[in-house]
Amino acid sequence: MEHQHVSQEMRKCAQMCHECHDVCLETLQHCLHMGGKHAEAHHIRLMMDCVQICHTSEDFMLRGSDMHGETCRACSVVCARCADDCARMGDDAQMTKCADTCRRCADSCRKMAGAAA
Amino acid sequence: MEHQHVSQEMRKCAQMCHECHDVCLETLQHCLHMGGKHAEAHHIRLMMDCVQICHTSEDFMLRGSDMHGETCRACSVVCARCADDCARMGDDAQMTKCADTCRRCADSCRKMAGAAA
Amino acid sequence: MEHQHVSQEMRKCAQMCHECHDVCLETLQHCLHMGGKHAEAHHIRLMMDCVQICHTSEDFMLRGSDMHGETCRACSVVCARCADDCARMGDDAQMTKCADTCRRCADSCRKMAGAAA
Amino acid sequence: MEHQHVSQEMRKCAQMCHECHDVCLETLQHCLHMGGKHAEAHHIRLMMDCVQICHTSEDFMLRGSDMHGETCRACSVVCARCADDCARMGDDAQMTKCADTCRRCADSCRKMAGAAA
Repeated sequence: MEHQHVSQEMRKCAQMCHECHDVCLETLQHCLHMGGKHAEAHHIRLMMDCVQICHTSEDFMLRGSDMHGETCRACSVVCARCADDCARMGDDAQMTKCADTCRRCADSCRKMAGAAA
Repeated sequence: MEHQHVSQEMRKCAQMCHECHDVCLETLQHCLHMGGKHAEAHHIRLMMDCVQICHTSEDFMLRGSDMHGETCRACSVVCARCADDCARMGDDAQMTKCADTCRRCADSCRKMAGAAA
Repeated sequence: MEHQHVSQEMRKCAQMCHECHDVCLETLQHCLHMGGKHAEAHHIRLMMDCVQICHTSEDFMLRGSDMHGETCRACSVVCARCADDCARMGDDAQMTKCADTCRRCADSCRKMAGAAA
Repeated sequence: MEHQHVSQEMRKCAQMCHECHDVCLETLQHCLHMGGKHAEAHHIRLMMDCVQICHTSEDFMLRGSDMHGETCRACSVVCARCADDCARMGDDAQMTKCADTCRRCADSCRKMAGAAA
């Protein structure tokens, strides 16, 4: 179909953003329950940022938007920061999983933003 | 973990909502390209409604929210309406797929809303 | 215009939802900084629920959706719960403001849902 | 309060993003009803992009996020494109209003992104 704008690469990156959104949203609840440094305002806010930009980035790609490079770039920066922040608390399985997922999403979005530039 | 509030049923329903969100968002672009009855304002608006409430319903469940019955109920009504609207255009593979997915999401959310009541 | 579907009542309710979304999102950061009972997982999750359903409810009305009764109903229930939860911490100006705003939004959405039924 | 991170400039820009979100969401329905070039898939998709990134950008600022420069940058690019696209159809009041609002939001976000860099 001539109007098929969603490439396999975009679909894969969109799926990565979705996975990162889900893991961050669940990890956020985990952090609130853990309390202490996990529940610091700055960390929770960063995870909320990550949840929201991952969702937005996913949607731009599923729409086949020619502006997806902009949201992928923003997403890669936020995810990389979130990965670092989760890694520094990396003493349990949930935080490690979240850090890994954010890192992979950051990589995927950075490549996608570069390809769109 | 005592703070694990997301049951297998909720996780499955959340996944269904995610799938419905994705299919509707892609089908929406398909409809805009098809034009004619597919691109009628009422139909496009309904698909936008469906995309948004599916995402909201998914997030309530992934947060393990005790208010998820409210969003699941709204989601089941919107998805059922969207399934009907897609089915009445059901002459191509994309519309049929969208109608089926919306129907299954409506069923899943209705059960989830009932269980939460 | 024949396609003007957003009544003054809907526009007013949408504006109320927007105001509630904003106040809850800012109060959420306030609660995270306060810590203690303000930052309890259950309370933060409820505020995240409120932020999201208010936004969704607002958008359904601004689209002039004939399904807005569903999202207004869900919004009124979540806002009422959030108002109660904020009120029980009601010892500072931010919590009192948030409780008041949630209460007014719950009322507005309940009326709107009733009118749409 | 030491945890007050939302400056007056950010609050003003967040308000601009909200206004742009609202105008675009209503204009999108207007375009669907107009049909023809107004309802072209590319234009509708761009307006959906604009609605979503404006909302995301607003939320980052209301949270006082230190990552708001990233979303403001993306928002300024999408809004500028949307302004152009609305202006080229600029023969009615709704399209002119939308183009003007998008232009002002693009300017506001570009300044905010520059200040955050």
